[in-house]
Amino acid sequence: MATDRENAVFEAAIKLGALYHQFVGTPISRSTAEIVEAAIESAVSLQPYVTKITVRLDKNLMNENPFGYSELTGAMYDAVIETKYGDAVCRASLKFEDGYPLMKILE
Amino acid sequence: MATDRENAVFEAAIKLGALYHQFVGTPISRSTAEIVEAAIESAVSLQPYVTKITVRLDKNLMNENPFGYSELTGAMYDAVIETKYGDAVCRASLKFEDGYPLMKILE
Amino acid sequence: MATDRENAVFEAAIKLGALYHQFVGTPISRSTAEIVEAAIESAVSLQPYVTKITVRLDKNLMNENPFGYSELTGAMYDAVIETKYGDAVCRASLKFEDGYPLMKILE
Amino acid sequence: MATDRENAVFEAAIKLGALYHQFVGTPISRSTAEIVEAAIESAVSLQPYVTKITVRLDKNLMNENPFGYSELTGAMYDAVIETKYGDAVCRASLKFEDGYPLMKILE
Repeated sequence: MATDRENAVFEAAIKLGALYHQFVGTPISRSTAEIVEAAIESAVSLQPYVTKITVRLDKNLMNENPFGYSELTGAMYDAVIETKYGDAVCRASLKFEDGYPLMKILE
Repeated sequence: MATDRENAVFEAAIKLGALYHQFVGTPISRSTAEIVEAAIESAVSLQPYVTKITVRLDKNLMNENPFGYSELTGAMYDAVIETKYGDAVCRASLKFEDGYPLMKILE
Repeated sequence: MATDRENAVFEAAIKLGALYHQFVGTPISRSTAEIVEAAIESAVSLQPYVTKITVRLDKNLMNENPFGYSELTGAMYDAVIETKYGDAVCRASLKFEDGYPLMKILE
Repeated sequence: MATDRENAVFEAAIKLGALYHQFVGTPISRSTAEIVEAAIESAVSLQPYVTKITVRLDKNLMNENPFGYSELTGAMYDAVIETKYGDAVCRASLKFEDGYPLMKILE
């Protein structure tokens, strides 16, 4: 049997994997970044056991292609999620580090 | 060589195919539908040759799963797009008809 | 600090969330199901800490739309993943239960 | 009313937009590229009015991240699609040109 702590960790990670692969590829620009951040947060907040979700997308990486916009990539993500399962809580993050969109348990 | 009219049609269809497959699967509910609609519209409006995009998602189909939310499906879409290429314009739509998320040229 | 066990759980869940949202919406039929299963397995097997991945898609749910095919939905998934982090191992699954594509820790 | 030619163009473009946004983000490597190509081709070939689809993914762009794999990006695509609507045929392509994953009508 998994513990509450393990389940809290499990649920946090599902959401990070999901939000990454659901939204990568979305056309985006510095002027539309906030609405996409809000949509991702709204989607994740509906999922089970989520108590908090913050998504920031790095506008400095939103370089314009020849048509004047960019595409959401893994490198842009800076997300923190909190889940609660029974009495246990997990806080985890997704952030680009050393050339990789790293997901890790914060506490 | 393709005509301006063919290119306007081509560009409209690219965006319909793209928005469908980018966002299907997104967690959604009646209370978050509008922010997802706005994010989809913001994404499509950045793409080349788009002059207008309207996305409505059918809240009546957002039935709650055991955790109280739904997932964006093709059946929910009601989208109209307008593109302009040279002097030509295309208006096209995505809407569920007869059991299929049909995309078609309106004019 | 997270334990190896927690990290193994975390890594398994990332992959389940990812594979779900990456591939939902893919056009599929009973005759192409196996190649899509293989592609999903090949993708997940590349990801860090994965030691085993099995993906089966329920052909009984691949009902034909008016154009003779179906779309990959969460209900079709039956996936089992194994991860190893340090000395710890996690086995987890994704399977439709009680109207929901449930992900859970098996051991 | 749209002509057969316009509808053939429309149908080709839908599929290019769809395959792009469905599969961008998929974990991939030089050793798994062919199975992903085959899965994309199998998915597109099911869609209405498609008579031919060829997808090649540029292995030279599959540089390894710290965990030894890559992710499918728009720059990797080299796809050609043929559609037939009534008596009309359309051939169109998706290929990276001048910093953009360009889709265009070939004939």
